[in-house]
Amino acid sequence: MAITAEQVKQLRDKTGAGMMDCKSALTEASGEMDKAVEVLRKKGLASAAKRAGRSTKDGIIGHYIHLGGKVGVLVEVNCETDFVARTDDFQTLAKELAMHIAAASPVYVKREDIPADVLDKEKEIYRAQFAGQNKPANVIDKIAEGKLESYYSQVCLMDQPSVRDPNISIKQMVATAAAKTGENVTVTRFARFKLGELAE
Amino acid sequence: MAITAEQVKQLRDKTGAGMMDCKSALTEASGEMDKAVEVLRKKGLASAAKRAGRSTKDGIIGHYIHLGGKVGVLVEVNCETDFVARTDDFQTLAKELAMHIAAASPVYVKREDIPADVLDKEKEIYRAQFAGQNKPANVIDKIAEGKLESYYSQVCLMDQPSVRDPNISIKQMVATAAAKTGENVTVTRFARFKLGELAE
Repeated sequence: MAITAEQVKQLRDKTGAGMMDCKSALTEASGEMDKAVEVLRKKGLASAAKRAGRSTKDGIIGHYIHLGGKVGVLVEVNCETDFVARTDDFQTLAKELAMHIAAASPVYVKREDIPADVLDKEKEIYRAQFAGQNKPANVIDKIAEGKLESYYSQVCLMDQPSVRDPNISIKQMVATAAAKTGENVTVTRFARFKLGELAE
Repeated sequence: MAITAEQVKQLRDKTGAGMMDCKSALTEASGEMDKAVEVLRKKGLASAAKRAGRSTKDGIIGHYIHLGGKVGVLVEVNCETDFVARTDDFQTLAKELAMHIAAASPVYVKREDIPADVLDKEKEIYRAQFAGQNKPANVIDKIAEGKLESYYSQVCLMDQPSVRDPNISIKQMVATAAAKTGENVTVTRFARFKLGELAE
């Protein structure tokens, strides 16, 4: 099996091991990156701590702390260059997003992040609500679709209406900022900690 | 008289004293829990009665933003009352912990949080490293134990040496703060976002 120079470089970046060691580990692992890391570790050539690779994306980790530390939010907002990341427009967007997350408490960034089983359960609930109502199947489908849209706007950050201006969604807010900066802008992830919520 | 591990754990939960201290106190008390607590208290090893059992729902979400937003950290640090949460000592602890997490990049809060399969894989790697070295099994076990301790101190926040003072562990740092405040202090969770790391 042929190992490309690109693979060797990737493994090297990941582990800090030597070029030749990386190549033979990849050969042994039939090109599988995770396996190759394991091979290196078994040979004592790579340590447990993952070496931080170079970031390919720019942007900023926005944050907001509410009520003197009772709620805390981090949000990673990405753009393409450090130049844009440093602009007031971009920094304001990151701060606004963090404040919105603190207030609106979304669960996922976008629809695609909802696990299939969670979505299935949600749909099942809608179906159960219509059971025995004797409505045509296509009507039920339409209503269920509407309910699903409303569910998205409750749990997905990008679908939520902005807390500051309910007439625009977060998706629109981000798109406006992207247009202003002239770069592709994405929200990658967020964390929202509310004091004591795990103990409840 | 035989002291069970369960008894030791119970006494430990009750008093927060060390494992070995609990065991010898139980032996001295012929296995009687209340007497063992008394033994510990007399030795000054269980100062605040039932400290570890009291709920720690108050506290603060500590945060730290590094390099103008390239790394962001949230950490939930709990104590028992809002009064303590507002003290300088407690606020400083939360800030120090957040800064430490930004620099030392732990993966888990404590050993118990490491998933079983991750730990198994780690142990397997140690075994593989010794394969064919013709060492007695008990020697290998001892070395593997040492390696595991070193692994803990790499990935577990509580086992990491403080970045500011490598002579003390984070566990000790938290214990010192707890003693100062007179309340039970725990670190519940943290989030560490490094810009672009998900795209690597």
